[in-house]
Amino acid sequence: MQRTVYFVSDQTGVTAETLGHSLLTQFDGQEFRLVTVPFIDSVDKARATVERINMAAEREGVRPIVFSTLVQDELRTVVRQANALFLDFFDAFLGPLELELQMQSTHTLGRAHGVTDTASYMRRIEATNFAMAHDDGGTARSYEMADVILIGVSRSGKTPTCLYMALQYGVYAANYPLTEDELETATLPPAIRSYRDKLYGLTISPERLQQIRRERRPHGRYASPQQVRFELRAAETLYRRQSIPFINTTDKSIEEIAAAILNETGVERRVR
Amino acid sequence: MQRTVYFVSDQTGVTAETLGHSLLTQFDGQEFRLVTVPFIDSVDKARATVERINMAAEREGVRPIVFSTLVQDELRTVVRQANALFLDFFDAFLGPLELELQMQSTHTLGRAHGVTDTASYMRRIEATNFAMAHDDGGTARSYEMADVILIGVSRSGKTPTCLYMALQYGVYAANYPLTEDELETATLPPAIRSYRDKLYGLTISPERLQQIRRERRPHGRYASPQQVRFELRAAETLYRRQSIPFINTTDKSIEEIAAAILNETGVERRVR
Repeated sequence: MQRTVYFVSDQTGVTAETLGHSLLTQFDGQEFRLVTVPFIDSVDKARATVERINMAAEREGVRPIVFSTLVQDELRTVVRQANALFLDFFDAFLGPLELELQMQSTHTLGRAHGVTDTASYMRRIEATNFAMAHDDGGTARSYEMADVILIGVSRSGKTPTCLYMALQYGVYAANYPLTEDELETATLPPAIRSYRDKLYGLTISPERLQQIRRERRPHGRYASPQQVRFELRAAETLYRRQSIPFINTTDKSIEEIAAAILNETGVERRVR
Repeated sequence: MQRTVYFVSDQTGVTAETLGHSLLTQFDGQEFRLVTVPFIDSVDKARATVERINMAAEREGVRPIVFSTLVQDELRTVVRQANALFLDFFDAFLGPLELELQMQSTHTLGRAHGVTDTASYMRRIEATNFAMAHDDGGTARSYEMADVILIGVSRSGKTPTCLYMALQYGVYAANYPLTEDELETATLPPAIRSYRDKLYGLTISPERLQQIRRERRPHGRYASPQQVRFELRAAETLYRRQSIPFINTTDKSIEEIAAAILNETGVERRVR
């Protein structure tokens, strides 16, 4: 039996999705149909949402689950009346926080994912530009500005990790590919040799790397078991010999890789 | 008086940060020092975290606030004893969900930002590669695969929005810059003309665009008031004439721009 889950928000819905997703992953074997309903910022839109939820309840014979991050009392009161399990994020936590801080919360339109701060918006954009310019060895090579430089063989996860760190944390992350030639010499490439303290290595299981490379180029040496194994073994040897910290990205999400790198290097987030 | 806030997680801390941040933005005028404590997956680490929290409480003369997404009861029990306001996301919502679903939750290590699904990891990576290859007019130009093609003048927010949509939602987003030459003709550039249904325009206030461009190139025509105004007026005229939906990105965060585009175009997330 499928359950429909609504993420209802007066803004982007990112917070409601994050909350709901965390909770739903704790229930195995139940199928969920996920629907995000963002920008519910008027009573009319709130009423339309209630109708939508009620129709789903009737159609499916079971009431939906609603994760709400609506802040305005007026809108919550409307959506709460839907035929659903209504889980209200602000209801649960604003009360205890108000008591603790001895302050009234502003109860203003969700601002979690808005531009509260132009400076931090600019930092994310600049960090993203930096990651783009310093991707895959890049052309710019102003590594002095880098907070961290990821190294690893082709398709080990460098690019998405750098971009995620830039967008999420405003961190300046460059990446440099370890090519076959460089791996054969077992020394650090000249371009990054003087930035040893910023280097962080990525590795991955041979099976997984083969699978990823095959999606890109099914034939030839690039995705062959021998080649993949040689490159990974050489990269790991290099990390160990040069005392470069490294992480195995197999079975890790982009979020996990990024969080682990920040945690281990102590690189500070530039944006919260 | 500053308050220290801890985001404590057995995994990346992304969920705790997102939820805590949403709540804290509702309290104006209170300063918070934010500390993420990820990967707390053993009783020893939980105890060390308690010590850390208690020391902050003593040092600052006011107890910290702890947002916890710890799932394992054993670890929560430990951290709950800290001298802090302990706000527990799972405690608040798992109970009602278990009742509603008539299921026990698995209470397993937080999996919200883990790789629950290799296919969805691959989709995010592929979408990111697509965004990189189709950035700024790109070389690849396989626009048939694009879910959406963002157009706009230089620095209107195309690149970070595309990358965010790829990483967060697995959406295939390309972007195409409207250059001066193309703006002067007031027609759609040939490269994107046959993909009209996928086009989505970005615009921005002249003041903001000037500010952003000045950071990049302080002198010359690129950031001049006349140039910026001409380009934006021409782009908006083009959008209206060609019936291309568009959004003003001034004072919007990347999350807001992305969510609004998905909401208005109906483009489906490929990843949840």
